[in-house]
Amino acid sequence: MVQLFDDERLDYLLIEDDLQIIQSPTVFSFSLDAVLLAHFTFVPVKKGQLLDLCSGNGVVPLLLSRRSRAHITGVEIQKRLYDMATRSLQLNNLHDQITMIHGDLTNMHAELGHSKFDVVTCNPPYFKTPATTEHNKNDHLTIARHEVYCTLEDVVKACKLHVRPGGKVSMVHRPGRLVDILTLFRKYKLEPKRMRLVYPKKGRDANTLLVEGVRDGKTDLTILPPLYIYNDDNSYTAEAEEIIYGKK
Amino acid sequence: MVQLFDDERLDYLLIEDDLQIIQSPTVFSFSLDAVLLAHFTFVPVKKGQLLDLCSGNGVVPLLLSRRSRAHITGVEIQKRLYDMATRSLQLNNLHDQITMIHGDLTNMHAELGHSKFDVVTCNPPYFKTPATTEHNKNDHLTIARHEVYCTLEDVVKACKLHVRPGGKVSMVHRPGRLVDILTLFRKYKLEPKRMRLVYPKKGRDANTLLVEGVRDGKTDLTILPPLYIYNDDNSYTAEAEEIIYGKK
Repeated sequence: MVQLFDDERLDYLLIEDDLQIIQSPTVFSFSLDAVLLAHFTFVPVKKGQLLDLCSGNGVVPLLLSRRSRAHITGVEIQKRLYDMATRSLQLNNLHDQITMIHGDLTNMHAELGHSKFDVVTCNPPYFKTPATTEHNKNDHLTIARHEVYCTLEDVVKACKLHVRPGGKVSMVHRPGRLVDILTLFRKYKLEPKRMRLVYPKKGRDANTLLVEGVRDGKTDLTILPPLYIYNDDNSYTAEAEEIIYGKK
Repeated sequence: MVQLFDDERLDYLLIEDDLQIIQSPTVFSFSLDAVLLAHFTFVPVKKGQLLDLCSGNGVVPLLLSRRSRAHITGVEIQKRLYDMATRSLQLNNLHDQITMIHGDLTNMHAELGHSKFDVVTCNPPYFKTPATTEHNKNDHLTIARHEVYCTLEDVVKACKLHVRPGGKVSMVHRPGRLVDILTLFRKYKLEPKRMRLVYPKKGRDANTLLVEGVRDGKTDLTILPPLYIYNDDNSYTAEAEEIIYGKK
C-alpha cells in the first residue's frame, strides 16, 4: 500500500488496466486533456526515451507506460505533485520504467543533456499570468494552470532542447493559443506535422487542440478528423470512451 | 445576352438566386473552395468596401453580392479571366456593385490606395512552384493554381496593405499551409481570429481551411465546428448543400 496525505485519493486510469493514480481536489487532479495528449502522442512501442514536461501528478507517464515499453522521464516543478507522482509509480510498480524528477523545465540541461529524447510531451499551463495575480504563486492549482514559472515559449524551447533531430514533440492546449503554438514550434524548428481538434460536442467550437511537431521536419501539416467528447445526450462518444477508459 | 468564347459555358451559382457565371474547363472554373470562402467571410450587410484578390472569373465577388450591398472590387492578373468576370457582371447586371480590375495584386497601391477596405478576401494559388515548372507560365490553370505570379507572402502583404485597421481578411487554403498562413498573418498584423476546417467526409483528414484575421486585432482564435462536405453515401451534407445551392 501507499501513503495518502490530506485529501488525496486513489483514482483509476484506464479501468480495465488496473492503473491507479494519486489525486487531490485541492492540490492537483489530472484533466481530460492529459488523457487526450497521452493518447494522441506518437510513441515507439518497444524502446526509446520519452520525456514528459509539466508532468503534474504523473498522469501522462503513467498512461504512456501502457502504450510503450520505452523509458519515460517526467519533470515536475512542484514538490508536492512530484511526490504524488512518485508514490503513484510505486503503487503501480512502474519505478523501473518511469523516472520522476523534481525540477524546473527551463533548467534541466545539466541533468538531461540535450537532444536525448525520441519523444517529448507536455500539457503546459494554459493561462497567461498578469503581474497582479502573482501573489497566488504558492497555490498549487494556480501554478499548474497559469504561466507562473514558465511561459509557453519556455516550454517550447525546452522541448526543442531535449528532443533529438527527427524526434517528436506533442502538446495539448487551448485553440485560443494555436497561433502562438504554431509560430513558436516553427521558431524552435519543431515543424508542426499533425494536429487534432477536440470539440465538446457537435455544433460547438473546439475547446482543445493537440499538436505534434517533428524537430527539423519538413513543412506539411495534416489535420486529423475532429474528436467529439460528448454525444447530444451528454454521454461520452464511443471514441472518447475508448480513449478515457482504455481499449475494450 | 453575353458573348461566350471557345469552350466557355454559363453555369449557375446559387440556383435559387438565378446568379450565373461564365466558366471554361480549359481556362478556369471556380472551385468549391471559392464558394466556401464567400460563405465563411464576414461581410457588412448594408455598406462598405470589399476587395477580392486573385479573383479569377469573379466567383467570390458574385457570391458576396448576394450577401451584402457593399461595393466589391475584384483584382485578377490574368486578362482572359478578368474578361470572363467582366462579362459575368454584365450578364447579372452587377456592374454597379462590382468593379473588376485587371491588375497585379503586388502592385495595386496607386490604384487602390492603402487601408481603404473593410474586408479583403482571397482564394490564392495553393501550390509552391519549383523553378523547373516555370515554362508553364502561360497556362491559365497553372497560374491560378501555382505561385507563379505571387507567393503566399505577397498575398498576405497585399491583404494587409489594403485592409483598414480593425478590418477583416479571409482566406481559403490547404491544411498543409496552415502554419505558413498563421505565421504570415501574424507577421503582417492580421491576427487570426476565426478558423474553420473542412473535411470531405467523416473520418477523413481536413482538406481545406478557412481563416479570418483582423488587422491589429488581439490574440484570440476561435475554431468553429468542422464542416463536412459529403455524407457517407457521397451525397452533399445538408450544410454543404445550403452553402453551395443557397439558402432554401
